[in-house]
Amino acid sequence: MSLPSSLERIRIVLCQPSHPGNIGAAARAMKTMGLTRLYLVAPKIFPDPQATAMAAGAVDVLANARICASLAEALTGTVAATALTSRRRDLATEPAWARPAAAQLAAEAASGEVALVFGNETAGLSNEELSLCRHWALIPTDREFKSLNLAQAVQILCYELRMAAVDAGPPPTVTEAGAPASHEEVEALIGHLERAVIASGFLDPAKPKRLIPRMRRMFARAGLEKEEVNILRGMLSSFEK
Amino acid sequence: MSLPSSLERIRIVLCQPSHPGNIGAAARAMKTMGLTRLYLVAPKIFPDPQATAMAAGAVDVLANARICASLAEALTGTVAATALTSRRRDLATEPAWARPAAAQLAAEAASGEVALVFGNETAGLSNEELSLCRHWALIPTDREFKSLNLAQAVQILCYELRMAAVDAGPPPTVTEAGAPASHEEVEALIGHLERAVIASGFLDPAKPKRLIPRMRRMFARAGLEKEEVNILRGMLSSFEK
Repeated sequence: MSLPSSLERIRIVLCQPSHPGNIGAAARAMKTMGLTRLYLVAPKIFPDPQATAMAAGAVDVLANARICASLAEALTGTVAATALTSRRRDLATEPAWARPAAAQLAAEAASGEVALVFGNETAGLSNEELSLCRHWALIPTDREFKSLNLAQAVQILCYELRMAAVDAGPPPTVTEAGAPASHEEVEALIGHLERAVIASGFLDPAKPKRLIPRMRRMFARAGLEKEEVNILRGMLSSFEK
Repeated sequence: MSLPSSLERIRIVLCQPSHPGNIGAAARAMKTMGLTRLYLVAPKIFPDPQATAMAAGAVDVLANARICASLAEALTGTVAATALTSRRRDLATEPAWARPAAAQLAAEAASGEVALVFGNETAGLSNEELSLCRHWALIPTDREFKSLNLAQAVQILCYELRMAAVDAGPPPTVTEAGAPASHEEVEALIGHLERAVIASGFLDPAKPKRLIPRMRRMFARAGLEKEEVNILRGMLSSFEK
């Protein structure tokens, strides 16, 4: 697993983005995933209040963005670059799906600076810009409708980069979860249930079918807590009166 | 692998979204991933030109959105629901990370209708709404900055649902890729290279060090095509004159 600092070596490069709102949304998308290095190649309109508004709490990413005149300038100092493309091209590089492409780029970030390159909202990257990038990536989409918003494409790739680079560990545990019931406590509950449903006439002990095994399976899936067993046994006791 | 039709049984539910732009962006995010069933619980402003604008080519998803008065109404007919949460709660369900949560929900969609539930942009879901959902999911983010835009959260989850439910197959192959060079052709190139650099004085045959093995390894990574071998050998021949 790469150290999270590999995220610090990843440049997110937007080539000639048309809409400042997308730049802001992309900055926010980056920051939620721990990426901070934004490069803008010849942005049409930037800075802009729409970019600031869409960035929300990520205005620092905008403030630190590097403005470049060309993709070549943005790639200076990198050891690898992955271009996002949505269309097939002639004389092309074999594209990879986003997930393995992100894993590869995150791994390469251990060795030096790398870049993830996105094109203009409508035109994408020029053939020349694509040729500067060693790897190409595609986001798998519906066959009939592939039109991802630019900032959404940035969000998906930044998420995949983080998933590749950072071990999130277990999700936060629930603070209020009770202690799990022991095997004996669950068995005692099942025995109690069986006696109660026989006494009530619901279960005919001569024809038990699979009632109790089915209830056992249901309790197993629930992963009963001690407190829950106590509550259920209290209910059964009240029914038995 | 679930059939793509499992995507058709997944409802994307937005509870009390504040910003119509987010509703439109969410619709577009859904459609790119093959999801079409949008449910809006008490949206503040809808329909709205901002929603239409942000939906881009997904206005049909907006047009077919079901407006509901409550989350309970939106969940009617479902067999499972997963709530997106970003904060820890008391008396909570154990949350899962987005990827396994999406895989589980996609699998449950084989059995019936399911729902993925998102809350308001600032307040999230109420405790009561959360309690209606069997599963909870968390998107892994940077520890210091967790504030994902609502439509971005929808995009990530719809992407994960698609990744779980649909086998994308291999990426599109490159049409212009040439035939791979054969083993013998590559060996002949390496031999030619060796002769040329000895003849030029670059390589001392008494002290070859690891020059040729290193070039062999480089060619191996490149995966040479026949045409490339021809070109390289033509260059070597021109140097040898």
